[in-house]
Amino acid sequence: MLDRPIITLTTDFGLKDPFVGIMKGVILGINPKAKIIDISHNITPQNIFEAAHIISMGYKYFPPSTIHVIVVDPQVGSARRPLLISSQGHYFIGPDNGVFTLVYEEQHVEVIHITSPHYYFPPKGPTFHGRDIFAPAAAWFSKGIESSKFGNLINDYVTLPMPKSRISDETTVEGEVVYIDSFGNAITNITKDNLDKLSPEFSKNRFRVIYRDNQLSLSNYYSQTESSDLSGVLNSFGFLELFTYRGNASDKFDIKIGDKVTVKLI
Amino acid sequence: MLDRPIITLTTDFGLKDPFVGIMKGVILGINPKAKIIDISHNITPQNIFEAAHIISMGYKYFPPSTIHVIVVDPQVGSARRPLLISSQGHYFIGPDNGVFTLVYEEQHVEVIHITSPHYYFPPKGPTFHGRDIFAPAAAWFSKGIESSKFGNLINDYVTLPMPKSRISDETTVEGEVVYIDSFGNAITNITKDNLDKLSPEFSKNRFRVIYRDNQLSLSNYYSQTESSDLSGVLNSFGFLELFTYRGNASDKFDIKIGDKVTVKLI
Amino acid sequence: MLDRPIITLTTDFGLKDPFVGIMKGVILGINPKAKIIDISHNITPQNIFEAAHIISMGYKYFPPSTIHVIVVDPQVGSARRPLLISSQGHYFIGPDNGVFTLVYEEQHVEVIHITSPHYYFPPKGPTFHGRDIFAPAAAWFSKGIESSKFGNLINDYVTLPMPKSRISDETTVEGEVVYIDSFGNAITNITKDNLDKLSPEFSKNRFRVIYRDNQLSLSNYYSQTESSDLSGVLNSFGFLELFTYRGNASDKFDIKIGDKVTVKLI
Repeated sequence: MLDRPIITLTTDFGLKDPFVGIMKGVILGINPKAKIIDISHNITPQNIFEAAHIISMGYKYFPPSTIHVIVVDPQVGSARRPLLISSQGHYFIGPDNGVFTLVYEEQHVEVIHITSPHYYFPPKGPTFHGRDIFAPAAAWFSKGIESSKFGNLINDYVTLPMPKSRISDETTVEGEVVYIDSFGNAITNITKDNLDKLSPEFSKNRFRVIYRDNQLSLSNYYSQTESSDLSGVLNSFGFLELFTYRGNASDKFDIKIGDKVTVKLI
Repeated sequence: MLDRPIITLTTDFGLKDPFVGIMKGVILGINPKAKIIDISHNITPQNIFEAAHIISMGYKYFPPSTIHVIVVDPQVGSARRPLLISSQGHYFIGPDNGVFTLVYEEQHVEVIHITSPHYYFPPKGPTFHGRDIFAPAAAWFSKGIESSKFGNLINDYVTLPMPKSRISDETTVEGEVVYIDSFGNAITNITKDNLDKLSPEFSKNRFRVIYRDNQLSLSNYYSQTESSDLSGVLNSFGFLELFTYRGNASDKFDIKIGDKVTVKLI
Repeated sequence: MLDRPIITLTTDFGLKDPFVGIMKGVILGINPKAKIIDISHNITPQNIFEAAHIISMGYKYFPPSTIHVIVVDPQVGSARRPLLISSQGHYFIGPDNGVFTLVYEEQHVEVIHITSPHYYFPPKGPTFHGRDIFAPAAAWFSKGIESSKFGNLINDYVTLPMPKSRISDETTVEGEVVYIDSFGNAITNITKDNLDKLSPEFSKNRFRVIYRDNQLSLSNYYSQTESSDLSGVLNSFGFLELFTYRGNASDKFDIKIGDKVTVKLI
């Protein structure tokens, strides 16, 4: 554990209610040395898929031993299991509803079903396990309590089917929009690696991005195009992203999550 | 005081303007050791009633000696008094406009009228006492300055009339919606204690929740019902809450603060 | 440098995406002692003018040696230069697109063009220099790395034309609305100093505020007027502000940035 352990929070609680603050109060009551960092509290309510993508984008950029708490938890109060996940250098705490699917795909993990009420914030209620289970588990874990104290290893954790990009022939990658950011940029699941497989030496002019029968040009960076058309860029996370310069592409072109996107080598 | 004192902030400043950041800058200029935690900055502008409920839900979950600063202050610049409130283990700083009414009801308090300009951030202006009075008072107080240095005790602090639940006969509790959270859940002022008085042994099937002539079922937790009807649950704060599973009850059923809710023992 | 250096963040990233959290992860990976304070992440996307005003309002209230990181950066990935600015007691890091214009006007500055990839977060991508350049530069600088290590001094940094108030005759100041806050208050560029030049002894009754041919009264503080008309107040930043008591003046009177406002001595 770090001398000043970092605990990140990702929830669908929004920023009006006191719920996020309460989780922080509970954490600091258990471990006053914790450094709490917000990743997002504006996940669309109960949208596990969206939360999975936000976690996947973010966790890698935190120092080793950071503990990531995720509370997007429509089944709160039911028998769905609370989890403590150890991977290489990263820890995750949250509900067993598939929100960690992309972590499981990217990391070797050990998954513990949290069962020890010793680390709950009593008395546990039925609607706010962020306060009663996840925040206190993170705080105790950040103090160096061993993961095995929280419960037993499981292997049958829940995963969600995540759409994958695929190379459909030697000149074509097919994928779809998986996340739309606040700027309206539409991030796909088509990766730099996909394009490298079509053509090992990347050159933006060798590719055409196809979206709803339109051919889009590929830019090296946003302001390379001065046009207000829809364009593509390989973003800083290694994914193909659709954008319009200084505009909101999602609003302007009505782009939705799940929309198909294709890249062709020309 | 804590070695690393916690100061929480609750305001109606929103998160676009630099006002919250400025309060933090002022606090850290006075006490670099302060740990500042946001509870909410999205209180509806000037809504003292809403702020009172958010404070009441939140403060108990912070470690002893936490200082809670509340700035919802339509009378800023006028003669309304700035207050420093000591209760059992909790401190509050903010304007004397009734925003602390629920704290007064729940805690034994000592209320000081802050008058010593020694602890202001000079020069005090007329529109931003969060910066000029409340943040610096919290920062100085967090350094261990005695509360008596800030001003004199008063007893005539402002309270707001808060709607109360009442047991109207031996099978009936009457209350109303007092807060609607970001999920659209409608929190009432009917408590677990109220229901225990009707029937000491709680069983959800013994109660009917009545809202606008409809009888709602009571769930133990949200996902216990798979229906999209309006239902009730005793939430983790001990209050009856109206919800619809994976939906926004307030939007869907047009629930407003002040709406009457009744629980009947059957 | 401070023992626990303060780094503030001001971006147009919004609070849903993980981008702000990622910047914090990068900073804490480099300097675990950094204290990171959010000023705003809700700048209107790509609105450099708005960001310039938010920075100008806010930075003065932070302790000396605070490092202010600003990422409103439509040209990210292009050849626009990343800057490290030293002024009297304040440091600024961000893109060379004019966002620091008001700082340049208010402070004596030394401006360094950041060119040393040694302080980048590798590998630098084309769309997120907040993560790859600005956050790591701030973190390294907060550890005491000398500014000269980041690159060379420049003098041809970009400035934006900022509207100025002017005294047009001995009884008249002309200005305009430059910022609208979350309450709907319309902040102008007319200053207390402007009014003092018309009449050294300030008395609110000696001035008339003129907006769209209407004469507005000047209040000492918001609640001094109980009317729902548009009024003026000299706010706590020293600027004339148009407001309506307990209402949203901008919405109610359709006030826009750039609208002309005049003050006349009577």
